[in-house]
Amino acid sequence: MRITLIGAGNVGVHLGKRLYKKKVKIHQVFSRTLENAKYLGDQINAAYTNQLEEIDGLADIYILAIKDDLIGRVGEQLAKNKTVQKKLVVHTSGAVESTVLAPYFKHYGVFYPLQTFSKNKKVAFKNIPICVDAEKRKDKKRLLFLANQISKKVYTISDQERAILHVAAVFVNNFTNHLFYIASDICTKEQIDFNILQPLIQETVLKIQDQAPLEMQTGPARRGDKATIKKHLLFLRQYPEYAILYSGLSESIQNLYITVQNRAQRSENR
Amino acid sequence: MRITLIGAGNVGVHLGKRLYKKKVKIHQVFSRTLENAKYLGDQINAAYTNQLEEIDGLADIYILAIKDDLIGRVGEQLAKNKTVQKKLVVHTSGAVESTVLAPYFKHYGVFYPLQTFSKNKKVAFKNIPICVDAEKRKDKKRLLFLANQISKKVYTISDQERAILHVAAVFVNNFTNHLFYIASDICTKEQIDFNILQPLIQETVLKIQDQAPLEMQTGPARRGDKATIKKHLLFLRQYPEYAILYSGLSESIQNLYITVQNRAQRSENR
Repeated sequence: MRITLIGAGNVGVHLGKRLYKKKVKIHQVFSRTLENAKYLGDQINAAYTNQLEEIDGLADIYILAIKDDLIGRVGEQLAKNKTVQKKLVVHTSGAVESTVLAPYFKHYGVFYPLQTFSKNKKVAFKNIPICVDAEKRKDKKRLLFLANQISKKVYTISDQERAILHVAAVFVNNFTNHLFYIASDICTKEQIDFNILQPLIQETVLKIQDQAPLEMQTGPARRGDKATIKKHLLFLRQYPEYAILYSGLSESIQNLYITVQNRAQRSENR
Repeated sequence: MRITLIGAGNVGVHLGKRLYKKKVKIHQVFSRTLENAKYLGDQINAAYTNQLEEIDGLADIYILAIKDDLIGRVGEQLAKNKTVQKKLVVHTSGAVESTVLAPYFKHYGVFYPLQTFSKNKKVAFKNIPICVDAEKRKDKKRLLFLANQISKKVYTISDQERAILHVAAVFVNNFTNHLFYIASDICTKEQIDFNILQPLIQETVLKIQDQAPLEMQTGPARRGDKATIKKHLLFLRQYPEYAILYSGLSESIQNLYITVQNRAQRSENR
């Protein structure tokens, strides 16, 4: 199985290196920036180019690891090569339907590694869930085969399920990271060492590996401790944007546990 | 140094066991629930009681590991014993001023372990930051000495700093956990295995150990990818409460990076 990799950003680089390490042959690498294409190509023993027209039809699967809004356009471009047009072409996006490639290719699908990549940080790829899908059963089988070579966690996930997973991923990754930013910003401005909070952060996340978040919630909103919430909001008056988020999240937590409690009482009364 | 521990909840139990393990003598343990008092007392070789009047004056430091709104009242009760009244009395709360104990004791302070405890889950106590403070220098020294026996991370933190840390802790712990709950709730309702998201969650938090959250943000809001945000909000129409939080957090992220960008441009133009 020969792979051509379109894109040498975070996903492209990590995916390319992992495939190479697992002895999957990378045929060509493309990046609009020649430097990036060369950097990756040299590392994974692949030809490289910054010209889409130079992508040839000699690979079996073409992986588009590019920005969401470029997938359609790049697909269209690639399909101008009549040999590529007949090949299996997939994208790596969590948010884009697989069908965005349908107008250009008979064999299309998705190869979505559900992880956040940073260019210079290694990740244990074997634990990264890879969500694959393809319209044709045979294509799906090929993607599953490829995914299983680089990860122990391979899932067949439909477009609809992937869209939902992507929303959930935004909550647990992007929004969580933003909360960390807010805490670090407050600490910096108030001249407190943010690292004091590191053990708490690590523990919060260790817990979730074996406990349900519903049961492990603590804090003023969970307790319905209005005095502390009020005190916190008073302090946050100097950070009005954070105050809004504090209120919204605290309300959501309070509502949740009121609902949980009412439900428990109703079932007791039965 | 002999300690009397008032309270056998999550904090009391973990703190008591850690002190015992580090060969600090626990003199008495109090809990309103005799069963809890006995459970902890037996484990850490301490006398136990559920009667505050039975707390005697033979310990050196009295640690109140009880609910925030009980600290004042229990302090007042304890101070009725004229010997206890002269001892060093501290509480373990992140949110309550040390001065809540000032009306009752000459020697008062705070002994605040900045961590989230679950009753049945072990934590690596030596890495838990302990924030201590006391009005009198000699008392502070004693608390630092005690804290250093059970943790490698000991900080002197004023009431004001502790209040700020507590707000920050709510963001990184309580609110983060709530985001995890939301994601798990969506997955459950949509019949998707929440565990697919576990590696992403773990990576999000590993990153923060050595990278600034400002630099490691990704996702639709960070990219200003309005199409994806719109799509997510459309899906979240069936979860109106989550939609509100999604909007608020996405806006906050977008505003942040617009500000960062403008700042960078201004300094370029100089």
